[in-house]
Amino acid sequence: MRETRKTRPPAAAKRAERIQMPIIPTVADWIAGTPGTISLGQGVVHYGPPPAALSKIPAFLADAAHHKYVPDAGIPRLRKTFEEKLRAENGIDAPGGRRIFVTAGANQGFLNTLLCLCDPGDEVILLSPYYFNHEMAVGLADCQAVCVPTDRNHQPRLAAIEGAMTARTRAVVTVSPNNPAGVVYPPDTLRAINRLCTGRGIYHISDEAYEYFTYGGATHFSPGSLDPEHTISLFSMSKSYGMASWRVGFLVLPEHLFDDMMKIQDTVVICAPAVSQAVALEALKEGRRYCRRRLPAIARVREGMLAAFSRIPDLLTVPPSRGAFYFLVKIRTSMSSLTLAERLIREHKVAVIPGGTFGLGEGCYLRISYGNLPGGAALEGARRFVRGLKTILGG
Amino acid sequence: MRETRKTRPPAAAKRAERIQMPIIPTVADWIAGTPGTISLGQGVVHYGPPPAALSKIPAFLADAAHHKYVPDAGIPRLRKTFEEKLRAENGIDAPGGRRIFVTAGANQGFLNTLLCLCDPGDEVILLSPYYFNHEMAVGLADCQAVCVPTDRNHQPRLAAIEGAMTARTRAVVTVSPNNPAGVVYPPDTLRAINRLCTGRGIYHISDEAYEYFTYGGATHFSPGSLDPEHTISLFSMSKSYGMASWRVGFLVLPEHLFDDMMKIQDTVVICAPAVSQAVALEALKEGRRYCRRRLPAIARVREGMLAAFSRIPDLLTVPPSRGAFYFLVKIRTSMSSLTLAERLIREHKVAVIPGGTFGLGEGCYLRISYGNLPGGAALEGARRFVRGLKTILGG
Repeated sequence: MRETRKTRPPAAAKRAERIQMPIIPTVADWIAGTPGTISLGQGVVHYGPPPAALSKIPAFLADAAHHKYVPDAGIPRLRKTFEEKLRAENGIDAPGGRRIFVTAGANQGFLNTLLCLCDPGDEVILLSPYYFNHEMAVGLADCQAVCVPTDRNHQPRLAAIEGAMTARTRAVVTVSPNNPAGVVYPPDTLRAINRLCTGRGIYHISDEAYEYFTYGGATHFSPGSLDPEHTISLFSMSKSYGMASWRVGFLVLPEHLFDDMMKIQDTVVICAPAVSQAVALEALKEGRRYCRRRLPAIARVREGMLAAFSRIPDLLTVPPSRGAFYFLVKIRTSMSSLTLAERLIREHKVAVIPGGTFGLGEGCYLRISYGNLPGGAALEGARRFVRGLKTILGG
Repeated sequence: MRETRKTRPPAAAKRAERIQMPIIPTVADWIAGTPGTISLGQGVVHYGPPPAALSKIPAFLADAAHHKYVPDAGIPRLRKTFEEKLRAENGIDAPGGRRIFVTAGANQGFLNTLLCLCDPGDEVILLSPYYFNHEMAVGLADCQAVCVPTDRNHQPRLAAIEGAMTARTRAVVTVSPNNPAGVVYPPDTLRAINRLCTGRGIYHISDEAYEYFTYGGATHFSPGSLDPEHTISLFSMSKSYGMASWRVGFLVLPEHLFDDMMKIQDTVVICAPAVSQAVALEALKEGRRYCRRRLPAIARVREGMLAAFSRIPDLLTVPPSRGAFYFLVKIRTSMSSLTLAERLIREHKVAVIPGGTFGLGEGCYLRISYGNLPGGAALEGARRFVRGLKTILGG
């Protein structure tokens, strides 16, 4: 009976169809098909959360109330602790009760922000190469990503950003230290972008997930310290505290947006997972020294990789970068980055991320992570990468 | 310098401004201001997750890989286990690898679904009274919620649903057992709605968060067992397993939507929290008997409340209901439900949820939960509620 009236199910929505397939699951499938692959791919660190923080979980779970929903904006003590961190480290004076949301990761914080600021058809300026999930989120929110290329060193070009602004522009997004380019934007550059936004009456969305990862004297700067009414700042526990799977981050917003953000948080996720918030609270007590202790080893991997790359100058260019844990290298080939990345995995058992996913349509770029494996394995990965390039490109 | 160019920050997006403020944080504020309040408000159960499931957390966390991202669609063993549950209990044959996503709660699953199916301006049919977060999500996705009132017993009216369908309709949403009305839709009703959707080539979104909570012989039925190509089914660990704060649920979808859903999942949350997935896996091993053991006590509270309400027939009407853990009662007064709910808290220390939030604009309705407190406290709450109504309404 039913079959006679059955129609073909409709396709997915246009907004879903037109955004790119996420690259990480694709690369993960290639890796799964090639046992023994060393991954310099995904943006994670090789260490986990502070053991002292994990040891507090049983006491937290013993309270029955902690299995029910916790406040939408986050556990009050966690917001208070993050408020203190923002004041001490970032120069941001944001009373937690009306300006801080704990989110289920910085991605959810970014989507919340778009839904709060932008209606369909509004424009959001991304600097390219961009973090792929930002571009995808703008598409999902049915807004227009206006991509402004950075310069050859992956630094913002102010005049180009200003030139891209229209009456529909609602926000400019910066990521510093940058994913995927690994560069740190100088404080003056971030100040100038923030001033542009303030002058235009639009928002500056500042993603600071990698704030602790700087090298060689580079300084992290938080635009949220400049203008609390025009700046939204996103933070994450995923990288600094090795808590990627726990899904916990922070969204710092102007007070006048708090009530509207509450509606969005309630609809999307109700609250960030309580157990993750409990671990985050304990981790924040340990503070940035937890990450800082690991930086020298990560910096040594970084130097080792740079030394390896310096031996094949005919095959690749490494723009200067002093942040996050990425190199975005340019490969001298006409091969597509997707093809090259797949061959490096299948033929040389080393995984990196193809540049196409970051909006780099011209030229072959690869993003290489130096944070997600301990030293020896990472440097072995770099050797495979160099050997692989030589073999594939005939160097 | 900056001040001279500073402009007023723009307001929030229209889609954020026009959706309702979430009621739960508002009620929570009233409760916080009235110590000693007994809450029959929020939709949570009074018990937590299976202790045996919690006891496995340390072993899970000992594996460093579990702190990195887990697969977007969920931990494979958890999806496999849920696949088996769906086949055994729901008559749904959904291979986990291409049809199941683990989400950060059923709310996130619902938003994912809307973003996957609907473009701005598309229409989604909700049966009113509706679950407020569904109406809010439709607004956030910039779609149009078309609300079709149920009958006086809160049961769907098929002709009205069919009459509300237009060329822009993308989906019909049902929630059975129902939040907020506590009714269970008969299998034939759900079959008929599913057949309507199939015939029109649109989707049936079936929210089954309360599937285990039925009383007096009512039977839960899963429309996903009928037509795997037109049905999206949402499940939650929050109620059955007392895991509200853990944020873990399941989205079961047609295989042809899997790739597009993967893009959305990656953008919104990357993956559901891994530790919550680990607890969910162990909880599913205990299975529905974990919840079933608690049903007799909840049913006794239910009977006790019905007995209390039966003593004030002049003040309220209780439509028949045999599911979830809610009564949606109609109060004989011209007072607004919001005012009455606030006075019940402030003057009588008992919290319930005002009906306006469920789209009940006419008449004064209140949703009363009988699941979120153990027996004695819940019945004391019912006594306060009855006394409060008598005092406020002069009965």
